[in-house]
Amino acid sequence: MENVKVAFLGFGNVGTGAYKIINQNNDEIKRSEAVRLEVSKILVRDINKKRALDVGDSVLTDKIEEIVNDPEISIVAEFIGGVDPAKDYVLSCLKSKKSVVTANKELIAKHGQELQKVAMDNGVGLYYEASVAGGIPVIKILLESLQANRIKGIMGIINGTTNYILTKMSEEGRDFEDVLAEAQRLGIAEPDPTSDIEGFDAVYKLSILSSIAFHKRVNVDCIYREGITKITVDDINYGKELGFVLKLLAIAKKQDNTIEVRVHPTFIPQDHPLAAVRSSFNAIFLKGDAVGDIMLYGRGAGDLPTGSAVVSDIISACHRKSNHKYVNFFNDEQDSKDANYNNDWESEFFIRLTVKDKPGVLAKIAGSFGKYGVSIASVIQKDRGKESAPLIFVTHAAKELSLKKAISDIKNQDDVLKVENIICVEH
Amino acid sequence: MENVKVAFLGFGNVGTGAYKIINQNNDEIKRSEAVRLEVSKILVRDINKKRALDVGDSVLTDKIEEIVNDPEISIVAEFIGGVDPAKDYVLSCLKSKKSVVTANKELIAKHGQELQKVAMDNGVGLYYEASVAGGIPVIKILLESLQANRIKGIMGIINGTTNYILTKMSEEGRDFEDVLAEAQRLGIAEPDPTSDIEGFDAVYKLSILSSIAFHKRVNVDCIYREGITKITVDDINYGKELGFVLKLLAIAKKQDNTIEVRVHPTFIPQDHPLAAVRSSFNAIFLKGDAVGDIMLYGRGAGDLPTGSAVVSDIISACHRKSNHKYVNFFNDEQDSKDANYNNDWESEFFIRLTVKDKPGVLAKIAGSFGKYGVSIASVIQKDRGKESAPLIFVTHAAKELSLKKAISDIKNQDDVLKVENIICVEH
Repeated sequence: MENVKVAFLGFGNVGTGAYKIINQNNDEIKRSEAVRLEVSKILVRDINKKRALDVGDSVLTDKIEEIVNDPEISIVAEFIGGVDPAKDYVLSCLKSKKSVVTANKELIAKHGQELQKVAMDNGVGLYYEASVAGGIPVIKILLESLQANRIKGIMGIINGTTNYILTKMSEEGRDFEDVLAEAQRLGIAEPDPTSDIEGFDAVYKLSILSSIAFHKRVNVDCIYREGITKITVDDINYGKELGFVLKLLAIAKKQDNTIEVRVHPTFIPQDHPLAAVRSSFNAIFLKGDAVGDIMLYGRGAGDLPTGSAVVSDIISACHRKSNHKYVNFFNDEQDSKDANYNNDWESEFFIRLTVKDKPGVLAKIAGSFGKYGVSIASVIQKDRGKESAPLIFVTHAAKELSLKKAISDIKNQDDVLKVENIICVEH
Repeated sequence: MENVKVAFLGFGNVGTGAYKIINQNNDEIKRSEAVRLEVSKILVRDINKKRALDVGDSVLTDKIEEIVNDPEISIVAEFIGGVDPAKDYVLSCLKSKKSVVTANKELIAKHGQELQKVAMDNGVGLYYEASVAGGIPVIKILLESLQANRIKGIMGIINGTTNYILTKMSEEGRDFEDVLAEAQRLGIAEPDPTSDIEGFDAVYKLSILSSIAFHKRVNVDCIYREGITKITVDDINYGKELGFVLKLLAIAKKQDNTIEVRVHPTFIPQDHPLAAVRSSFNAIFLKGDAVGDIMLYGRGAGDLPTGSAVVSDIISACHRKSNHKYVNFFNDEQDSKDANYNNDWESEFFIRLTVKDKPGVLAKIAGSFGKYGVSIASVIQKDRGKESAPLIFVTHAAKELSLKKAISDIKNQDDVLKVENIICVEH
């Protein structure tokens, strides 16, 4: 039985979850993995702070050196989050020949390449399953189960907070602000919710997933990003009438050497498997040329689900010893073969307008769509007989730039009072 | 770049799929895995048979010895199916220090323990991801992503043929025999469909999954089995009225040392994620004490999806070299700690009766349920005013043995013409 000493950097929600799992399931882990894990040091800011979980005074430290310089510690799990000081700490640990496991999506999305290089140079591992979709093992599946596939696409709900908000808006007809405030009270949304509701969190995760899937580094800056703050219950309800459910989707597609990566609110058909993903659950569709469509569903956050991914990575790091798995998308050579990023993607679009309710309006708008080659799949006209009326279009597949031109034409028509929203539709 | 010679035993549907994947994606595999796969020998019954895929005459052989005795072949993939002669061939390959990859669920379910022991003794690997749920990497996830969890339950649609049949019956209102005949014409069902429609196929797969999940060998014989041949469109339609969808589910639960394993038609709520799994797709729910619920969804059969799992296992076997992953449920020591099998499981039940349509019938039947402690959640009475009428009950959670006693009581009532069907309800 191998005894493995592990250190934690940070001891918040996920760190506490991982600690609990190691303690509760150590017998199970010993039996099936022949490894005994021991959390021997935990770096915290204030060692005197009262904590819900008693880990023993000798375990807590506020000095990173006590971990970096301890030769008995072979694996370090980082739970600090963000880039600073997590990056420096992780680098120090890697250079001291300790494998690092992290749940830090921002760190990996922005600096994964540099960190992996240091890990390789020092013969240790860098694992980050927990950085994407909490307990769902999507990174391991991409790296170690779909190796025989060319991955063509990724489509996923990878932010639980926005999915919670959109689910509540859809099922209870409540406004965005109202549900956001509730989510904050429940701890589902952060006091500053920007990273979630503006799509940054999903962008970090999509950068990691698409880089691994496409064997190319997909920079955070290359990903189109649109949050959910402009979504109204009206959009959701008109979408429902058309058979759609609204989700914040992370989408990545690859065709030959052209990559398309985007995070935005999206309508999907009600019978799409992602449509059934409610509340704060996550789910990810992967499309491989051999395996076809695979979907993974589970809890994308939370102390124990994310802790489960962290402890799994710790066990993997134990077994791999000096034979760690690295991903080739970080290779300099590959990185230099730049992919083309497609910013004129093709999609169907849902367009909600408010127009003057008089004869001929529809014909004129349809004319503008036609002028730019955008063809209409369906139209809803409502509340006839008032001064103004909502008018909703769903297009057939069209290029984004063509649609933009048509919309700018439509905006200039006297009878069009407002372009309320434009939302992609995917199948 | 490592060059790895692989032999195939059998060259049917899945073997051809694996061959195609290796040839089409070898560049991708070389680049990301630093391995070049070469299928150097394929064992077939008739080397002169005309084949759709030309692999070169020198590759085909009808002598197993040519593979067993070829020291350059390090990995063998078995696609023969069934126990005989697959088992003998696999044993010979393992003893010649070749790792074996197989899609053979019956072989692994019945003889996995013996085969793994021989693999361990010879320092080679035995991989069988493709034996369960085709392209869905459920075995890898159980073994290498959920190590930190105690698995409490498995619930899945792991037979595509029956899911295809039930989906068609449900959506098109067609009879079992009619849809089965269509599935046979389309090649979705075998000419002899027994293994699928009577649940044997699902039992093999559940034996493998539950053994891995629970770290205990769960014998095929310990699994309760009921196929879908007695299901009628009436059952499905009454279920729909109650908000249920019918699926053939494989269910395994573990509490302390007690295991419950069963394959049978099951009603689940319409908003359950498994309810949306249509046609021949597979999906598996896993419940871990840390990770919570995880669902995996994808194609459970087909040349390329199953081939994807086979090629992934071949690549894993290449990388592991002498450091193969074995599962501890095959250990003699663990196997001797017998689990208790629970044959009196608790479930809600859907019961469809045909009764005489006269006053007092419902009260008498309800009395029988009450006598054995089975309480009623809902009742549907239909077609009043005829001689006989359907009467449908859904119970609250009840023990199976209590239900059986109540049903035998009800059967003896004069006003009960027939107990049409009894179907479990899970949530």
